[in-house]
Amino acid sequence: MGISIVRYSDKGNTKWGVVKGEQVYPIPGHYRTLATFLEEGVQEAKNTLSRSNNGIALSAIQLLSPVTSPAQVVCQGANYSAHRQEAGLQGERPPFNLIFTKAPSSISGPNDDILSPSHVNLLDYEIELGLVIKKEITEEVNVDKDNFHEYVAGFVIANDVSARDVQFTEGQWYKAKSYRSFCPVGPILYLIEPEDTSYLHNLELTLTVNGEVRQSASTQQLLYKPEESLKELSGFMSFYPGDLLLTGTPGGVALKLTSEDFDQLSNPVAKLDDKIARLNEGQRENGHYLTEGDVVRCEIKSLDGEINLGVQENKVKFYLKTKTQ
Amino acid sequence: MGISIVRYSDKGNTKWGVVKGEQVYPIPGHYRTLATFLEEGVQEAKNTLSRSNNGIALSAIQLLSPVTSPAQVVCQGANYSAHRQEAGLQGERPPFNLIFTKAPSSISGPNDDILSPSHVNLLDYEIELGLVIKKEITEEVNVDKDNFHEYVAGFVIANDVSARDVQFTEGQWYKAKSYRSFCPVGPILYLIEPEDTSYLHNLELTLTVNGEVRQSASTQQLLYKPEESLKELSGFMSFYPGDLLLTGTPGGVALKLTSEDFDQLSNPVAKLDDKIARLNEGQRENGHYLTEGDVVRCEIKSLDGEINLGVQENKVKFYLKTKTQ
Repeated sequence: MGISIVRYSDKGNTKWGVVKGEQVYPIPGHYRTLATFLEEGVQEAKNTLSRSNNGIALSAIQLLSPVTSPAQVVCQGANYSAHRQEAGLQGERPPFNLIFTKAPSSISGPNDDILSPSHVNLLDYEIELGLVIKKEITEEVNVDKDNFHEYVAGFVIANDVSARDVQFTEGQWYKAKSYRSFCPVGPILYLIEPEDTSYLHNLELTLTVNGEVRQSASTQQLLYKPEESLKELSGFMSFYPGDLLLTGTPGGVALKLTSEDFDQLSNPVAKLDDKIARLNEGQRENGHYLTEGDVVRCEIKSLDGEINLGVQENKVKFYLKTKTQ
Repeated sequence: MGISIVRYSDKGNTKWGVVKGEQVYPIPGHYRTLATFLEEGVQEAKNTLSRSNNGIALSAIQLLSPVTSPAQVVCQGANYSAHRQEAGLQGERPPFNLIFTKAPSSISGPNDDILSPSHVNLLDYEIELGLVIKKEITEEVNVDKDNFHEYVAGFVIANDVSARDVQFTEGQWYKAKSYRSFCPVGPILYLIEPEDTSYLHNLELTLTVNGEVRQSASTQQLLYKPEESLKELSGFMSFYPGDLLLTGTPGGVALKLTSEDFDQLSNPVAKLDDKIARLNEGQRENGHYLTEGDVVRCEIKSLDGEINLGVQENKVKFYLKTKTQ
């Protein structure tokens, strides 16, 4: 079995700890970035676990994202059938793996508020399994179940928060998904051991809003699997230790588009205001978009309980901002 | 006046130099990243220039990109009227600043080959003025001509090489623009002084293919100006020293789309193969897409010759690759 890592703030100092049950055991040493921690801290974490004394209650600490910024945040879009259909796409596996990115500064802590500019009308959530890259990958690699752990350090929960009215009217998704705080990550970074790879395809994702289950799915349903996706991605781009790959969100987000909606929104010469009006009209009354004070809760774990990435819980707040996005 | 910096390889060692005329003067010290150079090397560069002895011929060295990887490569799309029109969009300034990113590993040297997988049929060029970020920017900043130099370290030439058949059939542009070698940068990083800001809107961009002028424009024509773009971008995301902002390409690329083409390509339920066929049919015979052995040459300079970012020249090569992308 692997070990569960958290990063947290202790009286203003950033620390790393290893989790056992409901206790956190501080790991000696200072690791400014996740890349440094992966290089220098993992053995120290294992030693800490074997000592296992002087724990702190997990509930008593201020948790931070275990993924540090800057890092690449590379994302797979439309990678579960149910989500494809609700977004106005055909449900079956598409002929290409849709890739986009989020700004690294969108990364925030697992209990931080989701802060949205007030001009965003259609604020949506997307629970995703995040994979943390272990080492520099500078050429195409063939990834399979036997060597997966050589390239991926571990698993985290991520929420790919998205401003749908920006996303679907501007066409390129980067801005709509990159506002600061739009990528809560953590709390737990589960560092995998070779034998854990089998869990990769059997993790259960659950997202609730104010206690109501909105997303519930298994990574078994991923259309482009992590192994083949890493092969493809490494074939055209490089990764660095501590980078984050988000594998896509299952069905159940607030967004509900028909293919006609999608088509009209993609029209390059239609007026922006008309697109926004159509989108707002069709979407707002479904009651699923996030509003002030909503609490979004995400969990990812294996059915047998062996892997548990903890509970991510974020409150939604809107702030007034001149609209320049 | 500012100073002109190059990064180069000297018998396998990476060095930084300051350029005067056709000579390069090596800067003492080791700077692994551009961020480190900006922090520690600039005064040393000025000292080197004032000594100005023991120069090496600029033509005799192997030039590297002055922007080092990893770094964020943030791009403005469709930011010149003539390019908007040839891409099937309305020519006037649009109601939003279109933002996307390229993978940092796409960055390559100013004389490196542009290496494209052989499955790419519509390989295109895009000369752009690149702005190098000077310091960490973690909140919205008001940028104007008087403080521009506080946020931007300098100017570079960049070529936003794009696989159009991937870009316009997959919808999100990241992959099509991120293949390794798809972002030649340099040769010169011109470090600006406060008085240089006025040149920002008066730089002449010229791109030729095999000696034929394809793109020729002035940064005066930028629709979203660098100052307002930095304000907007910093309003939702953070920058780090050494990041690269590409300001968009003018008219003259190989791509020629009508708004009907664009619309049909955006259709979410049309078959991928049909889109590719339509795109290839409409585009290939225009004779402007890059083919094996083509030489792309880029220059950016001020009309008065005070600022000259050097000559970027890249040869195009295709390599055989199993199509997984």
